[in-house]
Amino acid sequence: MNKVDQTITRIPLPNESAREEASRYLDTLTKPPGSLGRLEELAIQLAGITGTLPLDTLKKAIVVMAADHGVCEEGVSAYPSEVTSQMVMNFLHGGAAINVLARQAGADVICVDMGVKADLQHESLYTRKVRRGTGNIAVGEAMNRDEAIAAIGHGIELVEELAEKGYRLFATGEMGIGNTTPSAAMLAVLAGIDAEQAVGRGTGIDDTAMKRKRDAIERAIAVNAPDAGDPLGVLSKLGGLEIAGLVGVILGAAACGCPVVVDGFIASIAALTAARLAPRSLEYMIPSHVSQERGHRLVLEQLGLEPMMDLKMRLGEGTGAALCFNLVDAAVLIMREMATFESAGVSRE
Amino acid sequence: MNKVDQTITRIPLPNESAREEASRYLDTLTKPPGSLGRLEELAIQLAGITGTLPLDTLKKAIVVMAADHGVCEEGVSAYPSEVTSQMVMNFLHGGAAINVLARQAGADVICVDMGVKADLQHESLYTRKVRRGTGNIAVGEAMNRDEAIAAIGHGIELVEELAEKGYRLFATGEMGIGNTTPSAAMLAVLAGIDAEQAVGRGTGIDDTAMKRKRDAIERAIAVNAPDAGDPLGVLSKLGGLEIAGLVGVILGAAACGCPVVVDGFIASIAALTAARLAPRSLEYMIPSHVSQERGHRLVLEQLGLEPMMDLKMRLGEGTGAALCFNLVDAAVLIMREMATFESAGVSRE
Repeated sequence: MNKVDQTITRIPLPNESAREEASRYLDTLTKPPGSLGRLEELAIQLAGITGTLPLDTLKKAIVVMAADHGVCEEGVSAYPSEVTSQMVMNFLHGGAAINVLARQAGADVICVDMGVKADLQHESLYTRKVRRGTGNIAVGEAMNRDEAIAAIGHGIELVEELAEKGYRLFATGEMGIGNTTPSAAMLAVLAGIDAEQAVGRGTGIDDTAMKRKRDAIERAIAVNAPDAGDPLGVLSKLGGLEIAGLVGVILGAAACGCPVVVDGFIASIAALTAARLAPRSLEYMIPSHVSQERGHRLVLEQLGLEPMMDLKMRLGEGTGAALCFNLVDAAVLIMREMATFESAGVSRE
Repeated sequence: MNKVDQTITRIPLPNESAREEASRYLDTLTKPPGSLGRLEELAIQLAGITGTLPLDTLKKAIVVMAADHGVCEEGVSAYPSEVTSQMVMNFLHGGAAINVLARQAGADVICVDMGVKADLQHESLYTRKVRRGTGNIAVGEAMNRDEAIAAIGHGIELVEELAEKGYRLFATGEMGIGNTTPSAAMLAVLAGIDAEQAVGRGTGIDDTAMKRKRDAIERAIAVNAPDAGDPLGVLSKLGGLEIAGLVGVILGAAACGCPVVVDGFIASIAALTAARLAPRSLEYMIPSHVSQERGHRLVLEQLGLEPMMDLKMRLGEGTGAALCFNLVDAAVLIMREMATFESAGVSRE
């Protein structure tokens, strides 16, 4: 049994009695029952995942995985492929949007080279390069099955390593010029919809590039003939190395009993793949925002997750997930700090 | 000219050149243009309001105004009227949800007695009691026109006082058992819709109480015969003292050149009243969440404001606005801390 299958079997069931205890406690706090809505649901979910009450604020890591995409040669992106490497260096120097939002949230950015074409060197970079970018999915497979398993395995092992360092709350981020194309191709197959419904404007392409992008997705599905019932096959044939890595981050977090905040379109495709491989991993996922990328709402529907924010964002990097950390912390603080009807001397209905 | 009219004439136009400068600067940052969505819009709005770049993080106050409602005698709420006073004491002792979320956001809670029935004493309480609760709107006016003007004036003066102490970002919170009833009545008149469409379950009433609530709203409109074109009349005939106070907070913030975050249903009714009295005040409003209270989405549509979060909350107190402070800070930090394409050596499209 490979690392991926082993990890899937290790994902624990959430602690039902901790969930019930949290739910009962919430109803003793000075507010109408249920009136804090999603914050209450989050508190209950966190209790089930961590199995302990009172809840603690959790040490946070945003795992930003980067890789290049062979399909860029089809002209599907508004930016040249070398921007992937340039942005990785920007992450490492602390100047990108995700660095700003991570600092605000008190989270660390863990930057991972899962398969960037260039050689990148930096003391803070986690190098887990499976290969130098994927193959062009419009003409063949993105990677072979062993490479996909290796990339997922790296994500799992990285989370295990981070969990040992004390991180207990993860967020999924990514950088990979061109990566809305493989994500849309995977969505089309996993959701059983047309390329037309799955494709979006990514970083902001014009109508001509949109047509190229849709054509590339249609050819990718035709030439690779993926089987929707084989999520690993869909991932290896149509996906990306950072997407595979994030599947590992999600499975690894679930296996370690840690919640994981799902970011935008690409991260959500990784989440959908993880959920198809291991339905129980869904219990560990926290949705954040709905992005402007057209397919994102569809992916969230497939996952049965409802976003908490709508900020018209379409940047990726984990930016929506980073903003969501504030809501997770709020749920913990509500449980820790609010007065009860009894302690505050407030009458109940 | 009274304080209210004076204040309305003082509201400045946002600084258009600062808005344009912020917009141009955002496009130099390492992200696809516009990809941070609402955070970019917020940054531009803040630049226009404060007139200065670089943006600064703003000192925050959540003004929580409390009052009692005569209409409670119609049996429209799930909680007894004395809970208003008890919750005010809970705010002053730091045990309510708004205290927890304010601490998390680094904001101060400013608790104001605008018209609670009981005598309340606490060194941190701002006492601006206009009268001891409103009249029962189902049988007569909530307050007279002079009382409404006095309550709005208190809100304006309080914000002026807080602005002198260095507060630069405000949020609107409220507490008043029964106050979704006057809010729904005001919505019905201001939006020209039936009581049926405006009424919701408040803190969580059953079908029988819902019928009583709708009947009370219908009688209130029939007996008071408010004129939708006279927002001050609608407020005094159907509103509440905390709602009037919040109208003042919003007008005062706008006149002082400070942004103000609008919370849920009741706060949004105050915002709608402020916008009808002074359309320019809209430029200073930041929407936060959409609550579960049925009429809230309608009020936001009337205001032309789109919520950034959907957390299924229905607590009031300013809790949604407090969570939104994190997004306002994020917008400021993005402008202050992100690298430019040039400084980071990233290629542009």
